[in-house]
Amino acid sequence: MNIEPLTINKLTIIGVGLIGGSLARALKAKNLCRHVTGCSRNEDNLKKAVELGVIDSYSTDPAAAVTDADLVLLASPVSTYGGIFKAIQPALGAKTIITDAGSSKGSVVEAAKASLGDALPRFVPGHPIAGTEQSGVEASFAGLFQSHRVILTPLLETDAAATRVVSDMWRATGAEVILMNPEHHDSVLAATSHLPHLLAFALVDCLARKEEREEIFRYAAGGFADFTRIASSSPEMWHDICFANREHLLKVLLEFDAHLRDIEAAIRDGDSDKLLAIFTRAKSARDRFTDLRKLPAND
Amino acid sequence: MNIEPLTINKLTIIGVGLIGGSLARALKAKNLCRHVTGCSRNEDNLKKAVELGVIDSYSTDPAAAVTDADLVLLASPVSTYGGIFKAIQPALGAKTIITDAGSSKGSVVEAAKASLGDALPRFVPGHPIAGTEQSGVEASFAGLFQSHRVILTPLLETDAAATRVVSDMWRATGAEVILMNPEHHDSVLAATSHLPHLLAFALVDCLARKEEREEIFRYAAGGFADFTRIASSSPEMWHDICFANREHLLKVLLEFDAHLRDIEAAIRDGDSDKLLAIFTRAKSARDRFTDLRKLPAND
Repeated sequence: MNIEPLTINKLTIIGVGLIGGSLARALKAKNLCRHVTGCSRNEDNLKKAVELGVIDSYSTDPAAAVTDADLVLLASPVSTYGGIFKAIQPALGAKTIITDAGSSKGSVVEAAKASLGDALPRFVPGHPIAGTEQSGVEASFAGLFQSHRVILTPLLETDAAATRVVSDMWRATGAEVILMNPEHHDSVLAATSHLPHLLAFALVDCLARKEEREEIFRYAAGGFADFTRIASSSPEMWHDICFANREHLLKVLLEFDAHLRDIEAAIRDGDSDKLLAIFTRAKSARDRFTDLRKLPAND
Repeated sequence: MNIEPLTINKLTIIGVGLIGGSLARALKAKNLCRHVTGCSRNEDNLKKAVELGVIDSYSTDPAAAVTDADLVLLASPVSTYGGIFKAIQPALGAKTIITDAGSSKGSVVEAAKASLGDALPRFVPGHPIAGTEQSGVEASFAGLFQSHRVILTPLLETDAAATRVVSDMWRATGAEVILMNPEHHDSVLAATSHLPHLLAFALVDCLARKEEREEIFRYAAGGFADFTRIASSSPEMWHDICFANREHLLKVLLEFDAHLRDIEAAIRDGDSDKLLAIFTRAKSARDRFTDLRKLPAND
């Protein structure tokens, strides 16, 4: 892959948390960005980001923050995008490129179409498939995107040049960039990310309401720790994602629930062959997934 | 904790896999065991265990394997216990102590009561809360039980001296030993271990049947990898556990499924407060679990 030289004079990051902070650190570490301005509703968070050297300046006003920016990244919860697009639209320069890091793309595209006006062709919707259960700028680090995938979902209207700049930016962080249709992204991510988070939150809350919860958590082992790690993720962010990608999430949730009831019936009815077949197929698919993660995608 | 001197002249391990192999390695590493005999239906596996230095000798006949043993550990799938108890009972010495490593205890106690006869008071049901998604003797290592918990569920009939020997053995591997009622064990483990495994198998199988499965697995990130790691566990072993602990598992599965449908309704109805409250409670419980794991249990 041939990465074009990329220099961003001013990058504005709206929502300076794990993702926004890590992007700023990664670009600064490679001297690809001269100035980073942060924007957030929480001024204490912005001050902390300046102290940590993640951003160079800040404003709590989105319109002021994007003034003279070459590139604007939205990395706040997706429910805030509608208001932010409206607020920044009049202040965007004629060449400013806008992208985002939201975990759902359909609702983001809708909000952009409703509010970005003339700037819409310079909006490149994106989603870095990276993160930890940690959140906040303190958890950010330059290597977060290294060897991870970033999905971009440009629209028919999107300038190819804008897509290339955003793609170069992510590749400079060590990520592999993949293009996908927004609808398809939302369907795949509902299955692979949004449903698992929902199940982890649901299981931990279900067990926490039981009388024996102290013992349940005390006698849990590493398997439970791994399985529920994502239930330590930000409740606000995942609440937002569930609603933003509601249709796709409900679809795969219903499929899963039907499958679960089928398994429940197999256990109740003593259908040993069926249960063993399900577990065997699952192990084989999971082992194959481990292999797939190591391969480069060939899109 | 004061660990009494323990020396086992002959330890017989029936089922030489991850757990049985790791116990043998741990005791040998501390010179607490003079001779380990392995027993399995699979002679190739036993030969490999000898080559690896995990066992000193073997027999494929359980009765022959337990002859002259001080201590017998059953570490094969719980569905095999009934047949093994019947086979070894006539060959057990008058002082031989028997224990096991099965993940469910109610069905194990029933099988022991049905077949161990005079030896029942020397049977100490046990469950080391340790393991990985790996299985087989190749995956075994001496440190597996270090800082993990082992639950023993002695019966009213159990000799206290036998319980002490088994407890000392596990403590010598670095584990913390906890006593619990078998019924209570099964209820707690259904919630904390058996249900999560079932959900992981169910999710991976559900996604593997979808048309877009290649992409689902390709664009999954670390959260999905953690969440589904336990779906790489042994299908046979978990199939057995699900049936062995069927009543408790079905109970907590139904509770979980009702909760899941409640969450589904909240998403469908746009009940934002309810969804946020569930996620917030779950994160708080999961964060607290991380702390609990670090504390010694005070039973």
